Amino acid sequence: MFDLLLLAPLGSILALGFAAYLAIFILRQPQGNDRMCEIAQAVRIGARAYLKRQYMGVSLFFVVVFFILLLLAFNKYLPIFVPFAFLTGGFFSGLSGFVGMTIATQASNRTSAAAIKSLNSGLRVAFSSGAVMGLTVVGLGLLDLSIWYYFLNWYYEIHPIAAGMDKIAAITSTMLCFGMGASSQALFARVGGGIFTKAADVGADLVGKVEAGIPEDDPRNPAVIADNVGDNVGDVAGMGADLYESYVGSIVATSALGVAAGLGLPGVTVPMVMAAVGVIASIFGTFFVKSKEDANQSVLLAALRKGIFASSFIVAVVSYFLVKHTLGMQHLGVYWSVLSGLVAGVLIGLSTEYYTSSNFKPTRSVADASVTGPATVIIGGMAVGMMSTAIPVLVVGIAIMASFFLSGGAQNFNSGLYGVAISAVGMLSTLGITLATDAYGPVADNAGGNAEMSHLPPEVRKRTDALDALGNTTAATGKGFAIGSAALTALALIAAYKDQLLILGKDMQLTLLSPSVLVGLFVGGMLPFLFCSMTMRAVGRAAGKIVVEVRRQFKEINGLMEGKAKPDYARCVNIATASAQKEMIVPSLMAIIAPIALGLLVGVEAEAGLLAGATVTGFVLAIMMANSGGAWDNAKKYIEEGNMGGKGSFAHKAAVVGDTVGDPFKDTSGPSLNILIKLMSMVSIVFAAFVVRNSLFK
Amino acid sequence: MFDLLLLAPLGSILALGFAAYLAIFILRQPQGNDRMCEIAQAVRIGARAYLKRQYMGVSLFFVVVFFILLLLAFNKYLPIFVPFAFLTGGFFSGLSGFVGMTIATQASNRTSAAAIKSLNSGLRVAFSSGAVMGLTVVGLGLLDLSIWYYFLNWYYEIHPIAAGMDKIAAITSTMLCFGMGASSQALFARVGGGIFTKAADVGADLVGKVEAGIPEDDPRNPAVIADNVGDNVGDVAGMGADLYESYVGSIVATSALGVAAGLGLPGVTVPMVMAAVGVIASIFGTFFVKSKEDANQSVLLAALRKGIFASSFIVAVVSYFLVKHTLGMQHLGVYWSVLSGLVAGVLIGLSTEYYTSSNFKPTRSVADASVTGPATVIIGGMAVGMMSTAIPVLVVGIAIMASFFLSGGAQNFNSGLYGVAISAVGMLSTLGITLATDAYGPVADNAGGNAEMSHLPPEVRKRTDALDALGNTTAATGKGFAIGSAALTALALIAAYKDQLLILGKDMQLTLLSPSVLVGLFVGGMLPFLFCSMTMRAVGRAAGKIVVEVRRQFKEINGLMEGKAKPDYARCVNIATASAQKEMIVPSLMAIIAPIALGLLVGVEAEAGLLAGATVTGFVLAIMMANSGGAWDNAKKYIEEGNMGGKGSFAHKAAVVGDTVGDPFKDTSGPSLNILIKLMSMVSIVFAAFVVRNSLFK
Repeated sequence: MFDLLLLAPLGSILALGFAAYLAIFILRQPQGNDRMCEIAQAVRIGARAYLKRQYMGVSLFFVVVFFILLLLAFNKYLPIFVPFAFLTGGFFSGLSGFVGMTIATQASNRTSAAAIKSLNSGLRVAFSSGAVMGLTVVGLGLLDLSIWYYFLNWYYEIHPIAAGMDKIAAITSTMLCFGMGASSQALFARVGGGIFTKAADVGADLVGKVEAGIPEDDPRNPAVIADNVGDNVGDVAGMGADLYESYVGSIVATSALGVAAGLGLPGVTVPMVMAAVGVIASIFGTFFVKSKEDANQSVLLAALRKGIFASSFIVAVVSYFLVKHTLGMQHLGVYWSVLSGLVAGVLIGLSTEYYTSSNFKPTRSVADASVTGPATVIIGGMAVGMMSTAIPVLVVGIAIMASFFLSGGAQNFNSGLYGVAISAVGMLSTLGITLATDAYGPVADNAGGNAEMSHLPPEVRKRTDALDALGNTTAATGKGFAIGSAALTALALIAAYKDQLLILGKDMQLTLLSPSVLVGLFVGGMLPFLFCSMTMRAVGRAAGKIVVEVRRQFKEINGLMEGKAKPDYARCVNIATASAQKEMIVPSLMAIIAPIALGLLVGVEAEAGLLAGATVTGFVLAIMMANSGGAWDNAKKYIEEGNMGGKGSFAHKAAVVGDTVGDPFKDTSGPSLNILIKLMSMVSIVFAAFVVRNSLFK
Repeated sequence: MFDLLLLAPLGSILALGFAAYLAIFILRQPQGNDRMCEIAQAVRIGARAYLKRQYMGVSLFFVVVFFILLLLAFNKYLPIFVPFAFLTGGFFSGLSGFVGMTIATQASNRTSAAAIKSLNSGLRVAFSSGAVMGLTVVGLGLLDLSIWYYFLNWYYEIHPIAAGMDKIAAITSTMLCFGMGASSQALFARVGGGIFTKAADVGADLVGKVEAGIPEDDPRNPAVIADNVGDNVGDVAGMGADLYESYVGSIVATSALGVAAGLGLPGVTVPMVMAAVGVIASIFGTFFVKSKEDANQSVLLAALRKGIFASSFIVAVVSYFLVKHTLGMQHLGVYWSVLSGLVAGVLIGLSTEYYTSSNFKPTRSVADASVTGPATVIIGGMAVGMMSTAIPVLVVGIAIMASFFLSGGAQNFNSGLYGVAISAVGMLSTLGITLATDAYGPVADNAGGNAEMSHLPPEVRKRTDALDALGNTTAATGKGFAIGSAALTALALIAAYKDQLLILGKDMQLTLLSPSVLVGLFVGGMLPFLFCSMTMRAVGRAAGKIVVEVRRQFKEINGLMEGKAKPDYARCVNIATASAQKEMIVPSLMAIIAPIALGLLVGVEAEAGLLAGATVTGFVLAIMMANSGGAWDNAKKYIEEGNMGGKGSFAHKAAVVGDTVGDPFKDTSGPSLNILIKLMSMVSIVFAAFVVRNSLFK
């Protein structure tokens, strides 16, 4: 019989192959005039320089942690392969971001060049660039998983396995630790990139727009290239690493729980193959994304949505046969769990759209509040963000209950947990295309900047604006997706942590009434706030440095404002890079040290409580920050379309304040929270043996 | 032998007697000139009108819920006394607020009149008014508890008790349900009062300061009396009801857990008598509060602090002998639990001071951020608030662990829980004086308004300003106290809820891995956000109505701006009253319905999870909102003292935006969260039998 699992490496090759095909398609598009190429080149150099420095710093971290893990492995605290898997996870996660960013920086000027022809051409180029990213992430994810699965399978075939474990259990319990590398890389990328992008953006706006009174993306602004670079390092490279981690993490956690549920090999096959099915569905979905000329925002949104719906539909149908064939009729409930995850993802997306698109009441209410000044804009936007947490929480809650009980959790607790875990895989199975719509945003944004700086005709700029506005909504949707799947995966990871400790002979009593668990919940609940505080202050400090530099250049470079001299773009890029690299260290280390420290000082029960508490507040806070930020941004855009007095009015100035506050909310602090949660879970799992044997409270 | 428990009613009489003595002292002070009396009279009438309407609306609610509870009691879902205790709790809680507010509105003009003489005279009057409030709250609390204790004691002496229960268990399990009345009253008072005060404040500022350019507290502003009324209904009446509930709730929960820990009557005696000791200590402490002439803010703060430290010291010493005598040497650990609570309270207070006083770096950093505009002020203030959650969470965490293990939780789980519960009683034992320093703030604020509107000489205004600035810090401290004790009480209430269900034959498995518990945690974690969103929007809507009215009066009343005609103050008061009454309904009902609904739909485990989740995010969010708000307010005041360009500068305008955003944060949404948490716990306990028998998931 054909081994279904082989579909995983095949899916990987297919994804990477199609990504390569799209990349060639993009590179063959016209690059536009010299000015356009020059600007794109500057962004490319800046982004490359940033990533180089980022990877150098992160490499140091990886080397140090690698040796720590090696030490732990030699002392039998860890399976010997974990340190190596830590490296591959980090490497592939970083590679995903690198590939996505490389192609994104090639696509921006080509998108504006294509937009000269038509809206649809622009859309095709920008979206293809997003698809390269999406498919690279899922392709590399499946590749990493396949390599390790087949390697461990071969290894445990010929080497003895610990007593009381079968081969599959040994494989999955090792693979469970893999997420830490990907999570660390992702956190650095998101935090560093997020600080870079918003420091440049806020810095450019504060001096350029507010003080000097020149428009956004004006080439006279020395920070404008840094701003464009930032979109690529934060929203592309950071997001790629982030979702790589979510994707791999959900599959690995599901596999581990499949073993606990007594499903054996088929329990591993289903999530892996479902991911492969998702690849094919995503590729298929990309063909649905096209637009007529002069489409408005909702038509464009519908175009993207059509692709996602088509992919979801395919996954929904094929999964049925997959589950039925692999697990058998008695486990058909697992299929309904997958479906709950898929549906939950779509509902979270729709809810995000409702709260952040200016077509609906919430964002309009923020725009309305702008007539009474910045304070009411801030209060209104915060209120919208807070309100917007209700639907995703309820949706995830229903998905958890449904997937648990539909998978037979009432009879067999572990089957239920498997159901919850696989619903996250269901949600993420179409990542190839959902990430494409998300990663498309920064390309469109950069294309707009490119068109502005190259002084392309207004109708081209109008087209890139339409593409860009859409990107705001898809970005918020993507963030809702990332955090929603993190919440679904949370239960799986805590369960995996408990199982890991059980193997070590420690049976945790995780009752809410235990003071250690409660203290863990409190500390965990506080950490996302502390993390956001650190990252927001970091943006403030870094932006302050950019402000000083831009002011200096305006003052010292003669003829700059008249357009006779060129600003020193590279200096701003360097300053933002240096700040981001410095500022990302403390918050990232906190994520790694906090759970270990609490475990050592108060015990592993407190550590489990910390994971749950961080998941709860991280989930809610992340949605609030992403949606407040999205609502502020789009309220500003809505006013710029001529409402409430339009550009330059009192209301517009108030809305700009909201947008500026929203920048670190939605692009630095908020989107890092899902990685924070998962990295802390991963760290707990990897260091479980070390902590439990050395904890003060046993 | 002398029955120590008699100290509880004696303490109550002492507290109320001393409060009456202070009230007479205040009423005998000179009232100031006619203008001062006239203004104070207007505020008094407005505040009285508000409370009348508030109590009418709330009475309707109490009648409806009373009959629902009666119905439940007749169907054996509840002990028969609970509906009546619901009424007395609500009544005394409301009465605490009423007395406090009545005396506060009498004290404001007398404070400004005394400030004509000297700073110390002003401080004495304002602080005495606060002390009346503080002592009334503790006095009525002890009265309510004593009446019910002695009544139930007599009743169960002559009536049969349910099988398997002894008398003390029957008494405490009935008294446990008492908190719901006080909590409901408190929530309505805090939410309604909070909406009123900030709608008036924001409305007055937006038109008066920003549009018309007249100073704060200018008598030409039609909303200025409403603003002053608001301080009294929100910060005095609301806070009184709030802390009445915290105080009684912590004592009752501790008593119930004392029975579960097998301590019997002594387990009830200790918290009740400790409260009585706290009364005496608080009265003693008030004599320490005095100031030299021309003292600066830190000297004044030291004066207030001296009173609190003296009281804490007395409680710390006397409790030792109380525990030793009542529980015996083998339970001396309980004393250390009390001490952890006392110390934790002091530490939270100091941390609050650090983050919200302009003497320290965090608030200064917000002031620094004002030079780059309102956006950076907002980001800076949010970051300070988020950062400030770390210390209180860690302090409470350490207090929980310490009080659990010091009370012998390692040997006997229930003894440990008793220790955690009694640490909250320890924290709140000095409430008589801590509340006095807190309730003093609004009196000083109103005195300042009175002095301004009566055109008193600048040196008087300077004195009232000094008194007022201090109030901002003590208010933030009081809020930290309220939420800290709520977090400490949370474990006790969840444990009490579980015990209540155990009596009903339902043994809950509250493991973090249960999907119901996790879903409960998520939903509970989201509710504080939803609640804040609702209340913030309510302030926005109500403020909008005030803005329209103030603009109308400025336009339609001839000679108003020239000071020749008087504005219609009463109309603004009426509008704010009507809005607040309308707007408080939905968020308050949500607090009551949400836990019941989740329990019925997903089960009691989810409901317990909801309580834990709401406690975690409610705790963190409340601290963040209170401290962000405090930092913004004091950053603005710091600039007004002449820093960063002083009043009217660009930086000052930016700081005003921060202060306006902070208003609903610190005075409406934030301080309601601790009541929200406890009301939900109380509702869960009271409706436990109903929910468990009618839940869809059993």
